[in-house]
Amino acid sequence: MGRRNEILQRATEVFERKGVTQTSIEDIAQAVGIKREAIYYYFRGRHDILLEIILPSSKELLTGIEAIRDSDTPGAEKLKDAVRNHLLAYDPRYLEMSVALREDLFFSDGDGKLRELQDIWHRYGDLWAELIEDGQMTGAFRSDLDAKLVSYAILGMCNWLSRWFDPKKDLSLDEIIDTYFKLTFEGIQPRG
Amino acid sequence: MGRRNEILQRATEVFERKGVTQTSIEDIAQAVGIKREAIYYYFRGRHDILLEIILPSSKELLTGIEAIRDSDTPGAEKLKDAVRNHLLAYDPRYLEMSVALREDLFFSDGDGKLRELQDIWHRYGDLWAELIEDGQMTGAFRSDLDAKLVSYAILGMCNWLSRWFDPKKDLSLDEIIDTYFKLTFEGIQPRG
Repeated sequence: MGRRNEILQRATEVFERKGVTQTSIEDIAQAVGIKREAIYYYFRGRHDILLEIILPSSKELLTGIEAIRDSDTPGAEKLKDAVRNHLLAYDPRYLEMSVALREDLFFSDGDGKLRELQDIWHRYGDLWAELIEDGQMTGAFRSDLDAKLVSYAILGMCNWLSRWFDPKKDLSLDEIIDTYFKLTFEGIQPRG
Repeated sequence: MGRRNEILQRATEVFERKGVTQTSIEDIAQAVGIKREAIYYYFRGRHDILLEIILPSSKELLTGIEAIRDSDTPGAEKLKDAVRNHLLAYDPRYLEMSVALREDLFFSDGDGKLRELQDIWHRYGDLWAELIEDGQMTGAFRSDLDAKLVSYAILGMCNWLSRWFDPKKDLSLDEIIDTYFKLTFEGIQPRG
């Protein structure tokens, strides 16, 4: 493993243990066993490291929802698959980092990676709204609610896990996926 | 208005305009028209200012949900009232500050205000879970979902507004309250 990847891996561990906002470049340097300055040889700062960690799982998120859109499963299944895709690709570890990164998007974006991430998130949000709209058109979901707002609601519900979820406690991600699906599906299913 | 209150008011405006994470003590000092050092005469730092701004609306949040619990309205109404209480007491401006404050709870708590805020949030979360549980017991809500998880889901949905809501755009808080209620109520209402 090259030095660069080693930094990314140790940083992921430190972010997970201490929380993103509590982690300094110094902490990451210590975990790798190098000097603070050596980190800056590879990365412009904490945001740059976060960005590199988040980018692959963000791409997964997008590939996942595109596959769900293109599948032949009915609307309700698609919704459950999309909730699952979100909470598995962005497991709470990545979720916390992603949320922390969102806090401060004004750092310098020398090589366009931030732009790439923002484009992914934007496209991802659009695909969620489309998933709801398509379901409304096929009759799988009730159509009196604003599709975009419904998608924001579900994404918010999922993203908020970054604030409370502790894998050491009793609830499993599977239970959460199941509950979030039931809670939201019944909310957007047409009444018979 | 005393100097102290003036700082709080100007800080609220700057936080709203620039976003909390982008606001420095220097920005607040400039808005008040005093020196940076003068801010430190009244507050220990940005967190201390945030805390003072958030505390009154957090108390409102709690008083609101206590009143809803003690009311005679049926479960479904209580849920709608609780969503409304949350999104009105913590309007998106305060929500952003509250979320930003949550990011970093490890600053010094000289006078116990942080402790007070944490106790309020804790109690508030408990009352939400109770509201769902009570509804499950009276048959207003389906009882196969975990009450605590359902309350986390709804609170997450609401709190996520801090990330996307823009009062200058077309959606009103009333529409959001209505949609979030419909989405979640149908999810927890027993099927007939």
